[in-house]
Amino acid sequence: MAEENTVYIGKKPTMNYVLAVVTQFNSGSNDVIIKARGRAISRAVDVAEIVRNRFVQEAEVKDINITTETLENEAGNSANVSSIEICLSKRSEDLTDLA
Amino acid sequence: MAEENTVYIGKKPTMNYVLAVVTQFNSGSNDVIIKARGRAISRAVDVAEIVRNRFVQEAEVKDINITTETLENEAGNSANVSSIEICLSKRSEDLTDLA
Repeated sequence: MAEENTVYIGKKPTMNYVLAVVTQFNSGSNDVIIKARGRAISRAVDVAEIVRNRFVQEAEVKDINITTETLENEAGNSANVSSIEICLSKRSEDLTDLA
Repeated sequence: MAEENTVYIGKKPTMNYVLAVVTQFNSGSNDVIIKARGRAISRAVDVAEIVRNRFVQEAEVKDINITTETLENEAGNSANVSSIEICLSKRSEDLTDLA
């Protein structure tokens, strides 16, 4: 149900994901969740910071969670990989709409 | 003042930093702050997760903050870089010491 507000960070250029998050906000979402695993975690933080500082100034970091996921590779071996979820949230609209 | 409880994540192998954090806890600290910038952010999350899951089970993530820092390179140009601070904290000792 929150899936439609979720942006998964992969290996594309950072600005692709920034655009995806901004589009979510502009289509009426008040919360957007940015998810990433492994090396993409750094990019997820970049995306959150760029959105917040440059494009959606009224957005703030509501919550950040880190966890470990166990993945299985093609050979059947399992590997642990860290993941992050960053929840960006717009502050109450009645305030920001006056600006 | 909190500097002595802070572990800065760089380019060394992840387990070096895990050891540094575990050592901080074993020397009596109840809180350890893990800091990283740029690409090292992913490694910082790995370090926090490995410490918490494997070495200091009573530690939990108390707080995570992300910010943007402006760095100046040798040519005098400035660049923005994301940074993260993960605060790991031991739960109250009276509970864990009984284990």
